[in-house]
Amino acid sequence: MIPFFRYNWIVREQWYQWCEELPLEELIKERTGGVGGILQTLFHVADVEWSWIRVLQGLPDFEEPFENYATLAKVRELDARFRPEVEEFVNSWDESMETRPLHNSRQDGSVEVLAWGEVVRHVIAHEIHHIGQLSVWSRELGRAPVSANLIRKGLILPG
Amino acid sequence: MIPFFRYNWIVREQWYQWCEELPLEELIKERTGGVGGILQTLFHVADVEWSWIRVLQGLPDFEEPFENYATLAKVRELDARFRPEVEEFVNSWDESMETRPLHNSRQDGSVEVLAWGEVVRHVIAHEIHHIGQLSVWSRELGRAPVSANLIRKGLILPG
Repeated sequence: MIPFFRYNWIVREQWYQWCEELPLEELIKERTGGVGGILQTLFHVADVEWSWIRVLQGLPDFEEPFENYATLAKVRELDARFRPEVEEFVNSWDESMETRPLHNSRQDGSVEVLAWGEVVRHVIAHEIHHIGQLSVWSRELGRAPVSANLIRKGLILPG
Repeated sequence: MIPFFRYNWIVREQWYQWCEELPLEELIKERTGGVGGILQTLFHVADVEWSWIRVLQGLPDFEEPFENYATLAKVRELDARFRPEVEEFVNSWDESMETRPLHNSRQDGSVEVLAWGEVVRHVIAHEIHHIGQLSVWSRELGRAPVSANLIRKGLILPG
C-alpha cells in the first residue's frame, strides 16, 4: 500500500511545481470534467485522502469548501497539514486491516459496511484518476503534463 | 494486488459498454492529451498490461499498432485474448515476487533493473491514469463518464 501513496505524493508535488508556472487565473479557471479545475482537483485529492483516513479512524473529516483555499499556497499548506496524519496511518498499515469493517453513514442516513482495504485502495485510485484529468487539461493548455510513470521512482528496490 | 486489477477490468468493461453508444468516428477521433483518442486509450491499456506481464515472464510482448485494431469489437477481442494470461499471472502473485528483479532492456540498448512489485503497480496506475483522461473526453462529448469509484464494487468484503 505504501508505494502507491508515496507515488501519489511524489506526483502531486510535481503537479504543485507545474502549477507554479501558471497564473492563478488558469489554476482556478473552470474546465470540463472532473471537479472542474486544476487547483480544485489538487485540493480535492488532498481532501478526499485525508477525509477517508479520518473516517477510518472514527474522527471528523474535512468539510470546508475549495473557496476557502483557492490559491496554490493555501492548497499546499492544507496538504502539508494533513500529510503527517496520513503518513502515520499508511505506515502503520498491516494485513489485519484489509478486511476490518468500516460502518459508514451515508448522506441518506443508511449505514454501509466497507472493508478498510477497499477504502484505502479507493483513495489511491481516486487520486490517480483525477491526475489523469489534469494531464488532459495540461495538453489543452499546450503544456507537457507531469509524468504518470510509477516505475523508475525508486519506490520498490529490486532484491 | 488482485483487487486493483479486478477494479481495472470492471471499469474497462464499463467503458467498452459506454463506447457502444458512440459511432466509431467518435471513438477513433483524435483528441487532446493521452494517446490521442478513446478507443486507442482502451487498446493502449490492454496492450501495456499484457506486455508488462509478458516481459516479467521473459516472453515476447505485443508490438502491433492500433491501426490493426481500430474497431470496438477488435479491441475487445484482443483484450479477451490477453486476459486469461494476465489473470493467471495476477492470481499467482505472492509476497516473494515484490522485489524480484526484472532485467529490462531499454530502447537505447542499456539494461535497467526493476522490481516486479514496481512493475505491476505501474501497470495498475497506468490504466487508472488513462481512464481519468477518458472521463474528461466523455464530459467534452456531453456524456456522463463511467464511475471511477473503487469502493462498492464488492472487491474486498469486510470481515
